Amino acid sequence: MLPKMTADELLAKAQKPAEEAMKLHPFYRGKMQTMAKCAIRDINDFAIWYTPGVAAPCKAIQADKGKVYDYTNKWNTVAIVSDGTRVLGLGDIGPEASLPVMEGKALIFKYLGGVDAVAICLNTKDPDQIIQAVKWLQPSFGGINLEDISSPKCFRILDTLRREMAIPVWHDDQQGTATVTLAGLTNALKIVGKPKEAVNITFIGIGAANVAISRLLFTAGYLPQHSIFVDSKGILHTGRSDLKQQAGKSYKWGLCQRTNPGKRTGGIAEALSGADVCISLSKSGPDTIKPEWVRTMAKDAILFVCANPIPEIWPWEAKQAGARIVATGRSDFPNQLNNSVVFPALFRGALDVRARTITDEMCIAAASELARYAEERGINENYICPTMAESDAFIREAVAVGMKAIEQGVAREKPSYEQLARQVTKMIKGAKASIDLMMKSELISPVPQEPT
Amino acid sequence: MLPKMTADELLAKAQKPAEEAMKLHPFYRGKMQTMAKCAIRDINDFAIWYTPGVAAPCKAIQADKGKVYDYTNKWNTVAIVSDGTRVLGLGDIGPEASLPVMEGKALIFKYLGGVDAVAICLNTKDPDQIIQAVKWLQPSFGGINLEDISSPKCFRILDTLRREMAIPVWHDDQQGTATVTLAGLTNALKIVGKPKEAVNITFIGIGAANVAISRLLFTAGYLPQHSIFVDSKGILHTGRSDLKQQAGKSYKWGLCQRTNPGKRTGGIAEALSGADVCISLSKSGPDTIKPEWVRTMAKDAILFVCANPIPEIWPWEAKQAGARIVATGRSDFPNQLNNSVVFPALFRGALDVRARTITDEMCIAAASELARYAEERGINENYICPTMAESDAFIREAVAVGMKAIEQGVAREKPSYEQLARQVTKMIKGAKASIDLMMKSELISPVPQEPT
Repeated sequence: MLPKMTADELLAKAQKPAEEAMKLHPFYRGKMQTMAKCAIRDINDFAIWYTPGVAAPCKAIQADKGKVYDYTNKWNTVAIVSDGTRVLGLGDIGPEASLPVMEGKALIFKYLGGVDAVAICLNTKDPDQIIQAVKWLQPSFGGINLEDISSPKCFRILDTLRREMAIPVWHDDQQGTATVTLAGLTNALKIVGKPKEAVNITFIGIGAANVAISRLLFTAGYLPQHSIFVDSKGILHTGRSDLKQQAGKSYKWGLCQRTNPGKRTGGIAEALSGADVCISLSKSGPDTIKPEWVRTMAKDAILFVCANPIPEIWPWEAKQAGARIVATGRSDFPNQLNNSVVFPALFRGALDVRARTITDEMCIAAASELARYAEERGINENYICPTMAESDAFIREAVAVGMKAIEQGVAREKPSYEQLARQVTKMIKGAKASIDLMMKSELISPVPQEPT
Repeated sequence: MLPKMTADELLAKAQKPAEEAMKLHPFYRGKMQTMAKCAIRDINDFAIWYTPGVAAPCKAIQADKGKVYDYTNKWNTVAIVSDGTRVLGLGDIGPEASLPVMEGKALIFKYLGGVDAVAICLNTKDPDQIIQAVKWLQPSFGGINLEDISSPKCFRILDTLRREMAIPVWHDDQQGTATVTLAGLTNALKIVGKPKEAVNITFIGIGAANVAISRLLFTAGYLPQHSIFVDSKGILHTGRSDLKQQAGKSYKWGLCQRTNPGKRTGGIAEALSGADVCISLSKSGPDTIKPEWVRTMAKDAILFVCANPIPEIWPWEAKQAGARIVATGRSDFPNQLNNSVVFPALFRGALDVRARTITDEMCIAAASELARYAEERGINENYICPTMAESDAFIREAVAVGMKAIEQGVAREKPSYEQLARQVTKMIKGAKASIDLMMKSELISPVPQEPT
């Protein structure tokens, strides 16, 4: 991946999507719309779909609430809920300004997973009110995707809702990011030939993402005693009296106790020295991590620099400083660690077995299947994880998630592997076919041509 | 409309939609889905629609909140909000059981108005909590359609939200029903040749619908002193001490004072004697109004019997008892007084001029345009109002509403008549074309054939 382009050219390339976005967002005036799902032969069919006929399924659901999954689209509908307090790398930009992100997410839910998702940007930042709002929304939805809610409140919001809701509640910035990171790391370690029990990992940034990533990694067999965490004040260790004072109130003191047994101190520079893996979800770069620090890492260093919108270090700079594998959160560089390869398929699997929740084991099953798919295709330094283009991966991933849910007893429906694979395939391929048809017929307008 | 079929055959016909609904709802498993609205040439376009490109429109909205109307689909998205406490004629069946109705409504919003509507059934019945929930939802939506919320709480919910929200809030059971009733009554009176200032109207049922209908009729020039209201305890008059005790708390005492100057007493039978018009939105029939009572009405009597799912009297019985014009809420009889000819087009007009609210005058403009359209086509006893099939009527209605909003100074955008007509036509015809295409391609499955 050593650049054939100059750094300036790469910077220009990296800015291109923003320019295009500012042209195309006002052209389309929104990325999502609604669409009928049932046939309307003529106007008389509204006597079936609406009054008077609709009273019959209403009464049937009144008698047996579970029938709402059979007579409505609740089973395939997910609310993307945000308060706009931690959007991309932009911080607290508010609910209106976060709507383009949530609509984009709904687009990906549909395009890659056949999931009908609705952007719900809430006009409150209070965690108890967010919890209350989501609970009130429950009857219409088959799942909840929390998004871009700031840390630390997002932990309590997710934990409370997972405990108290009857439908899966997911915080993509926690679980989605953790799942794709685990998938990518699994294959990156295969390439460099290091076992997961042996690698030293430095986590930079202790927001929602890295807390969730480390938790999933430790559940999957990575070792806390080989890990170092760095927050804005430096490395976590048991001498951090600022964190000891918050013991009980903050998860950080627990990390001080479980990690960094050598009691290393300092900042990012010191934390990276000798590390096999750097997992950074910190502030938007490109100068958060300096090339000279990367030079001090172990041989065959792996850097996951996933800050949005700009990685903590430009990939070409990290490579020039000796990193062997570099991944980012961006789609315009190789090795995108992209939640989009997780959430649509994972929800597809969870929805198709009517899972009551999404367990860590379902996340690990998703990561394993993604890693396996890429490995079968041939992994290398620039391909550690399936991309958004590899839609066959998502079918396998969704089925793996659904089967794990059945195995763990959290699924309300228990299709066979073959039945589930058929259903998942139909939903994922059907969604893409529908969008392609709308484009081909120009009911979705073509992208306007630039004047030449 | 004298039946060629027997009453038994008509009853069987009236039950057919429920039978079909119970077959087709589980077949389609929902009536609405989501769909892309923007082009996706290939996976690389997600760098524009999602991270990193999407950060640019987010920042633009953060700097100027009004831009959310240009860069997202907020401008065309309506939340259909219900707590399921007064669904059709079924009463308080709860949020899950009301979802088939709200999905059906979203289907009609799209099919007739090109409006992207989302069913939101809330898990609370408390009016203050419903108000709070809707306020929290505001950032994602361009309008709110309240639906099937019980009376009297629906009045305060609507009034509070209209006052405190920056987007149009509409309660279809109030304003939608009032608007279509005004349209139908306008033409019914033309047929029988009676002027609105002269007719005696008996209102049966004093729920949300008849309160809103009478208010709009009085605003449009019908006379309260020629009106009689009947609630479950009988005719309203100034001798009703039960209502006098609630003066100040209930709108009914005001009606006692403004209507029925002759201080008539009794029940429905007494209230109908000599009436030119009966507007009944009471309890589901078919025996709420008896044929012998209809016989006592004035010559050329007009009956609007709109209870759901069964009218207060079967239309053929009312006709046999001497009524000249009978209208119901059902699509399987002539003269359906159907909110569906109002809400999609009315919102179309309001959204396309970015109206801040929906005024009574916008409702009257919608009713007038609907009545005018039907009159031009040739009104008669079985055709007093455009049907759902007459989509040209909705284009004219939407434009009339938008132009009235501009005239009244409640529109944020001020297109010319021609510009607005072009926009409305594109949205309404585009929605139908999209659904037709999905059906033709069988991405929406055809209705399964009955085995013969």
